[in-house]
Amino acid sequence: MYNLGIDLGGTNIVVGVVDKENNIIGKAERKTNLPRPAENIFEDMYAAALDALDKAGLSMKDIECVGLGTPGAVEPETGVITYSANLFFHNVPAKKMLEERFGKIAFVGNDANCAAFGEFIAGAGKYARDMIAVTLGTGVGGGIILNKKLHVGFNGAAGEIGHMVIHVDGEGCNCGRKGCWETYASATALNRMTKELLESTHDPILEKVIAAEGEINAKVPYKAAREGSKACAELCEKYAKYVATGVLNLINMLEPEVICIGGGVSHEGDALLQPILAYVAKESYTRENDEEMQTSIKLAELGNDAGIIGAALLYKNG
Amino acid sequence: MYNLGIDLGGTNIVVGVVDKENNIIGKAERKTNLPRPAENIFEDMYAAALDALDKAGLSMKDIECVGLGTPGAVEPETGVITYSANLFFHNVPAKKMLEERFGKIAFVGNDANCAAFGEFIAGAGKYARDMIAVTLGTGVGGGIILNKKLHVGFNGAAGEIGHMVIHVDGEGCNCGRKGCWETYASATALNRMTKELLESTHDPILEKVIAAEGEINAKVPYKAAREGSKACAELCEKYAKYVATGVLNLINMLEPEVICIGGGVSHEGDALLQPILAYVAKESYTRENDEEMQTSIKLAELGNDAGIIGAALLYKNG
Repeated sequence: MYNLGIDLGGTNIVVGVVDKENNIIGKAERKTNLPRPAENIFEDMYAAALDALDKAGLSMKDIECVGLGTPGAVEPETGVITYSANLFFHNVPAKKMLEERFGKIAFVGNDANCAAFGEFIAGAGKYARDMIAVTLGTGVGGGIILNKKLHVGFNGAAGEIGHMVIHVDGEGCNCGRKGCWETYASATALNRMTKELLESTHDPILEKVIAAEGEINAKVPYKAAREGSKACAELCEKYAKYVATGVLNLINMLEPEVICIGGGVSHEGDALLQPILAYVAKESYTRENDEEMQTSIKLAELGNDAGIIGAALLYKNG
Repeated sequence: MYNLGIDLGGTNIVVGVVDKENNIIGKAERKTNLPRPAENIFEDMYAAALDALDKAGLSMKDIECVGLGTPGAVEPETGVITYSANLFFHNVPAKKMLEERFGKIAFVGNDANCAAFGEFIAGAGKYARDMIAVTLGTGVGGGIILNKKLHVGFNGAAGEIGHMVIHVDGEGCNCGRKGCWETYASATALNRMTKELLESTHDPILEKVIAAEGEINAKVPYKAAREGSKACAELCEKYAKYVATGVLNLINMLEPEVICIGGGVSHEGDALLQPILAYVAKESYTRENDEEMQTSIKLAELGNDAGIIGAALLYKNG
């Protein structure tokens, strides 16, 4: 048997057929075309699912259950999307709608939580009991898995690790607070710091890299550092310190077995990871413990597929 | 039947007999007299237990199980105190030693976790599913209860919420980091801020209160504020902001049903609590939700007894 995983985003609806080895064997998509009624969006999920099944050489009768990852807050018991600013949803009974349309048992979770759960079951967290996923993208997202279950909180809104303040009275955040981790550790923050550097110094290497890239993106300071820019090497070090600050906070509070780092900036690999590991080795509360008793910090493995795979595996979250 | 709860501290060993309604009905203590061998300390626990039983009009045969709260890290499976800097303990098999000496099933936990668990079962967290206890004392301690169980982490060291950085590059902390929550939100931090205020301005009300108290303690700025010192009112407001910053971080990440605030500074009651509630109402990620769907923030109820009661109730943590 197979499952369907649906990744509902502000731009695209992506549906994948996931086999028992947690591989996506067929994928199809539709435009989300916001704003429009939830009913129409769910119709397109069904249409995309049929396409994905066709690509996999399967049909709906081969499907055991359906999982949906959505932006916003999901009521854990009922699978109602209580609120999603991105989708303009308010109290959409997603689980019920999916079960009626697909004729299968359905599970609904927050998209960041689904991606975290996918990494936990099929990627960087395989065989672990606890894992926190950190996603360094436009913002800093995350998902917390404790005792092999997603920790969704009292009302399904837990996991907003990007909105932990690491700098009292610091940079303003969209959430209304000042100094949130995501204002220092997101790709957006890295781009801001690169822009500030560009404006405050004359760095020919940096200028050359930006000209070649055609824009300022998260790759720019790493590339410029590799090509010899000292100022960019320092900037990357500072950025790693900000990422490590939040990672260390998570370790000191929750001591998970694994922390996995994903999102756009994580494509820098060891250039990002190694300085973070150095900060953690120096500063974590349990740094004197034997190495196998410490949280291990890894790069995410599944990339953009994590959300689809995690949604398809939500049934394992009970 | 009754249980014994033992609160092992750097100065005193306190043992309480706890009844089925979670009341302490007999209490006795011994000096910890550090440094000395663990065996001798455990002997004194037993002697204090006999005293406490005598006061309660009971004997050891009325006791079902024994719980111990200790500083340091405890291996969750084995009840070994792997390391305690305060007690100079290294790999002390506390559970085994208690079971041999008392002839009862024994449970061992970190002292801050025991106090949190006591508040959860018998105090501010009664009837809740999740609770985080925050203790504003010499440091900022805490304990995290999720799904009715203590979250002790991968190796028993979770819950160090005071060592979450809220101010990158801020005040130096004993743990080796800079800007930890406890360097801004502990009673020690409040005393530091009061001292700085005293040195930088001439505030006759503050000076009078300090003279009356005979020292700078956490009560001083609150008392001076009540007596009309504007500078102290501002200081208390700033301190509340620091406490609220960490509380908000915990809510955004873990969305517990209850956060309970204890420790010395919590005796200020509403003067401490109300400004924190105002910050949370303004800044939490779920502030638009209905009130009954929000984390409720309460003062701790059990005071210093929380640790004994929590230790005696550890058997409920499984």
